[in-house]
Amino acid sequence: MNTKSYVDQHKDRFINELIDLLKIPSISADPAYKDEVIKTSEVIKSSLEKAGCDRVEICETPGYPIVYGEKIVDKNLPTVLVYGHYDVQPPDPINLWDSPPFEPVIKTTDIHPEGAIFARGACDDKGQMYMHVKAMELMTANDELPCNVKFMIEGEEEVGSESLGWFLERNREKLANDVILISDTGMIAKDVPSITTGLRGLSYVEVEVTGPNRDLHSGLYGGAVANPINILCDMIAQLHDENNHITIPGFYDKVEELSTEERAEMAKAPFSQENYNKALDIAQEHGEKGYTTNERNSIRPTLDVNGIWGGYTGEGAKTVIASKAFAKISMRLVPDQNWHEITELFQKHFENIAPDSVKVKVKPHHGGTAYVTPIDSVGYQAASAAYEDTFGKTPIPQRSGGSIPIVALFEKELNSKSILMGFGLDSDAIHSPNEHFGVWNYLKGIETIPHFYKHFTAMSK
Amino acid sequence: MNTKSYVDQHKDRFINELIDLLKIPSISADPAYKDEVIKTSEVIKSSLEKAGCDRVEICETPGYPIVYGEKIVDKNLPTVLVYGHYDVQPPDPINLWDSPPFEPVIKTTDIHPEGAIFARGACDDKGQMYMHVKAMELMTANDELPCNVKFMIEGEEEVGSESLGWFLERNREKLANDVILISDTGMIAKDVPSITTGLRGLSYVEVEVTGPNRDLHSGLYGGAVANPINILCDMIAQLHDENNHITIPGFYDKVEELSTEERAEMAKAPFSQENYNKALDIAQEHGEKGYTTNERNSIRPTLDVNGIWGGYTGEGAKTVIASKAFAKISMRLVPDQNWHEITELFQKHFENIAPDSVKVKVKPHHGGTAYVTPIDSVGYQAASAAYEDTFGKTPIPQRSGGSIPIVALFEKELNSKSILMGFGLDSDAIHSPNEHFGVWNYLKGIETIPHFYKHFTAMSK
Repeated sequence: MNTKSYVDQHKDRFINELIDLLKIPSISADPAYKDEVIKTSEVIKSSLEKAGCDRVEICETPGYPIVYGEKIVDKNLPTVLVYGHYDVQPPDPINLWDSPPFEPVIKTTDIHPEGAIFARGACDDKGQMYMHVKAMELMTANDELPCNVKFMIEGEEEVGSESLGWFLERNREKLANDVILISDTGMIAKDVPSITTGLRGLSYVEVEVTGPNRDLHSGLYGGAVANPINILCDMIAQLHDENNHITIPGFYDKVEELSTEERAEMAKAPFSQENYNKALDIAQEHGEKGYTTNERNSIRPTLDVNGIWGGYTGEGAKTVIASKAFAKISMRLVPDQNWHEITELFQKHFENIAPDSVKVKVKPHHGGTAYVTPIDSVGYQAASAAYEDTFGKTPIPQRSGGSIPIVALFEKELNSKSILMGFGLDSDAIHSPNEHFGVWNYLKGIETIPHFYKHFTAMSK
Repeated sequence: MNTKSYVDQHKDRFINELIDLLKIPSISADPAYKDEVIKTSEVIKSSLEKAGCDRVEICETPGYPIVYGEKIVDKNLPTVLVYGHYDVQPPDPINLWDSPPFEPVIKTTDIHPEGAIFARGACDDKGQMYMHVKAMELMTANDELPCNVKFMIEGEEEVGSESLGWFLERNREKLANDVILISDTGMIAKDVPSITTGLRGLSYVEVEVTGPNRDLHSGLYGGAVANPINILCDMIAQLHDENNHITIPGFYDKVEELSTEERAEMAKAPFSQENYNKALDIAQEHGEKGYTTNERNSIRPTLDVNGIWGGYTGEGAKTVIASKAFAKISMRLVPDQNWHEITELFQKHFENIAPDSVKVKVKPHHGGTAYVTPIDSVGYQAASAAYEDTFGKTPIPQRSGGSIPIVALFEKELNSKSILMGFGLDSDAIHSPNEHFGVWNYLKGIETIPHFYKHFTAMSK
């Protein structure tokens, strides 16, 4: 199987097609972009048809549509279900982008001397999802598709995949598969391929603290009424103790504790705290006492404020005591923590610690369960062999701190394991200004994926 | 002196003139409104000319212009300097206004059965400032101006009166006076006239906390780097102890402590904590331990967050760790606290409590010194007699929690005392959505002010 020559021959077109896709601002979180999200689903449909799928449809859901496509070679052969998403994160803060988020440009960087495509969604997940569409095209063109393939590309991943469960429940037969293949994670470095074997779960909430029933003059009322911003800050500060443990009662009750051996194994991954701090321009890391950086962002649960606002935030000064203050807070969860349970614990605790001088509302947003892929599964072994074919080295199994809540959902609804073959890098700035995806990584993904199909089919016999 | 008949005869015109003035959005804090601020100064100039001043000019400053006008009757008679401001606070949050802030409407309320004018600046300070212009018109028309009068109306009060000191230094002779008359405060109730004898000082700062050098994905980095929003909340929480004392070292060193007798005198002012809480819809008041509500908002210094922002604040969810978080923080100061000193103490302390994992910037905005008016001064006595003439009762001397930093500046630069005859009410929602000013209060002010001139001239002989 020589996938490299096809990629070399068609790489300019592959890049241009992705650039066109990135121009559509498919921001699922903001209703103002509804038409653009819909438009993107249509582009995906058409690209699957061109790549060789022979039953492609836009499936309506209570939210944004899911694009489904399939190519059934032989019912007796195994079936790979590819999952990806065509929606993207909001680009805020927009003023920190060096080029407009929806006008993709290719620029070289230290890590990407071959160039990287800068645009919102370049890596997460349009670029990584589109690798699979192009790998399908390659296998079709070379007549090398060794098994059945199904595509399921959704448009609500960045807002919690709310309609996906609904869709899975109603389409179990249609979606039946032997393994689910996803590229929505990263790898350790360009020369250190890795497969993500663990993902953290998520509980995302929005809180509102109300003090007086209207904004007040801070001179006339300051000091005499509870200022909801000060109170919110106080309450947020109380969510961690002096060792950066989370103080919510019961929060750690079900946390999977890794053995000393497992932690020692993890510690073997190449990592330099000095380079990490330098890359982020921080004088010192910060986190839960008793754990390393790589443990803190993978095997340990965390709590972070993702946004806060209240009072006057414009230019100049306004001496106001706001009536309300708000925060968006997310908790990353680890295996055995149930996100519904954690959301309830948070809610109860947050209401408990509120002083009588304010009113508090906690609005759960969305969540997901943590997940672990066994490295002795056929899927993992096939992926490992695929990397060996194209990178010339065995990939490292890696726990990631991120959440793809739908991976646990897939296991529950479709009873299949997911294999996370990510080609992005930590430095790709996903969810941040100046998100990008290396051209090398994009093409290497297209080159590697068909090898997974080959090995998975062979190993499944 | 029958000022009431003139007011009754012209009240419709007085109201319409104020409404026209309120239509101009003279927001000094926002550079986008520069032309409107300038336009307002021209309207004030013209109104002073019509009211009978005979030397009116728009005086340029490094910032917004100051409108000056005078009528010198006789150099041997005393001179009253009227101070006011024609700029207004920003109207945010705009969505909480029941009617547009710059389209004044008259509506009745429980407290104002005669109607109140709803608009930004209705009370603070266009309405209260314009009472003086109309009182001047009345005295001119009735040939009852008993002394010299000078007007000084500025356009930067809501952003810290930055050019006023510059102007005072350069115009000491022109501004020479025997007393300064200001209406930029409130009174206890419509049937409880009061004169403000104390004002709090102010130190206003903006803080910025920087964590990583770019926004990060909270899944990949959450728990391993300092989240600047969490850290900012922590730092803000640390600024008060469990008794709501401010923890900045040295903060209370120069605070004037009132005697038991003075506090007992203050406690005589009519006040119901129950009604106060009910009006604000709060279950419980909140403030420094050991002090009453009326003490907390007048004789005690305070620290409040006036605005906070960071991370994703749009619709939906974004799992981001922000690079930066910001807050606007103001401290209300009491006599003997120096605002420059307090700003420095804050800055030092805030930098001190920052963990090594973040960088902190403190940007001082503006400030002002606290002030107390002696109740045995001629100015106070004349004002008291004026209220007796029109309200039929002696006004109560009152300490206010607000700051008019320029009052201390006047004493320093012009060597005169200021008399604070406020006609607004606490419920007027100044600096808040739905600011309003009672028609009754507006007209009562115009009726009362000429009596001050009469008594002040007589008592000065």
